Amino acid sequence: MRPLILLSNDDGYQSRGLAALIEAVRPLGDVFVCAPDGPRSGASCSITTEVPVSYRHIRSEEGLKIYSCSGTPCVCVKLALDELLMRQPDLIVAGINHGSNASINMHYSGTTAVTTEAALHGIPSVAYSLDNHDPSGRVEHLVPICAHIAKLTLENGLPYGSYLNVNFPDVEEIKGIRVCRMAYSRWVEEFEPCPRSRGGHHFWLTGEQVDDEPNNDTTDLWAMRHDYAAITPIMVDPTDHKLIQTMQDWDL
Amino acid sequence: MRPLILLSNDDGYQSRGLAALIEAVRPLGDVFVCAPDGPRSGASCSITTEVPVSYRHIRSEEGLKIYSCSGTPCVCVKLALDELLMRQPDLIVAGINHGSNASINMHYSGTTAVTTEAALHGIPSVAYSLDNHDPSGRVEHLVPICAHIAKLTLENGLPYGSYLNVNFPDVEEIKGIRVCRMAYSRWVEEFEPCPRSRGGHHFWLTGEQVDDEPNNDTTDLWAMRHDYAAITPIMVDPTDHKLIQTMQDWDL
Repeated sequence: MRPLILLSNDDGYQSRGLAALIEAVRPLGDVFVCAPDGPRSGASCSITTEVPVSYRHIRSEEGLKIYSCSGTPCVCVKLALDELLMRQPDLIVAGINHGSNASINMHYSGTTAVTTEAALHGIPSVAYSLDNHDPSGRVEHLVPICAHIAKLTLENGLPYGSYLNVNFPDVEEIKGIRVCRMAYSRWVEEFEPCPRSRGGHHFWLTGEQVDDEPNNDTTDLWAMRHDYAAITPIMVDPTDHKLIQTMQDWDL
Repeated sequence: MRPLILLSNDDGYQSRGLAALIEAVRPLGDVFVCAPDGPRSGASCSITTEVPVSYRHIRSEEGLKIYSCSGTPCVCVKLALDELLMRQPDLIVAGINHGSNASINMHYSGTTAVTTEAALHGIPSVAYSLDNHDPSGRVEHLVPICAHIAKLTLENGLPYGSYLNVNFPDVEEIKGIRVCRMAYSRWVEEFEPCPRSRGGHHFWLTGEQVDDEPNNDTTDLWAMRHDYAAITPIMVDPTDHKLIQTMQDWDL
């Protein structure tokens, strides 16, 4: 039986990055797309229980089915797994996102929300993002490298509860692939005033990401700044076991 | 100088749980509240950059200032840190949430989004949740235990990038406090059909949380089922270092 590959994203089923990722993984198996019906950037793992979720069949052809869903990226994955698919997929891929999800950005990302949901179900998964926010930006050159990483993930599998967060630098020629840890970084100057004649306090959320360890060559931000694709393996169980030990001395 | 304590949540500034948490931490320092202007349950670490964020001053009294914000829980914290506060808080607390955020629920939670944002800024923080979804449910009995944990956190500090996820069982008498790891659990039967005469495929997101290791007494779900308050220490850097090593053998 051909592998079954579920694909979602946070830019919506019509995004250019999604089309490129379909092209990348189609040679590897049957592809089932369940993606948001519009942009959901910055959705993180949000879910809603207050309004119903709906889905629509967009189109089908040999080895490819595309559905759109009114929910967030996490809900797209849940819906596909619980309602739309006849069997558990062998791989879940997300992206290609228009914008970097390296370092701490994975906490806000709807792209890594897809892979978080996958890892919570014990399904190997890979999130792909390009460090360029332009939704019309070129991603097609990433097809071979996305396919290569997806193929290796299918072949090797991943430990239960872990996924791969892949981030590409926005360069003509990617030098290679590095497996990295998440860089310590911060967002600074996050609010830009947005004056309004009627008064009130209004701001645009904006800002710059600052790498707190720019010379550390083991991080994802270092790799990208040096024209490498960065793969950061992430666990969905972030328990701080060391702190559990430390807290034995607290007077709880 | 008295400690400065920032408080937020995902149930909104008018929630009963927030009032209880103000009462708990007020004896420990000056309290600054920046909480959503309405419910944001399930918001996770979502942020929006497509609409401006606004805030409103609600009221001030000696040692207490309350602001509401139109953004998500993460944005409430960012706004307080970047725009509203004159100095960095010594502690950030979230809750008391109406509903459990134990085990994998922390991925979807707007309550732990507050503490994630805190930990990303290196500020010690504690998220409090009660295993009862009723927004009018009683939380006032938790004031002393919330105060106790907050006081110990202020005194002992936390490692950079870690926070405490505290979950209370919904019982008359809590037996004690256990420091736990996150239980492996799953949400099952997540979609309930929501038929509509005009047609289409509509569902309510619902489901049951299943503990995959019910007899393991080191987990948060075990502690809560046995009437203990569970403290799960969480890291905001979930890099899988072991998988980085494993992947050295991949043909990347």
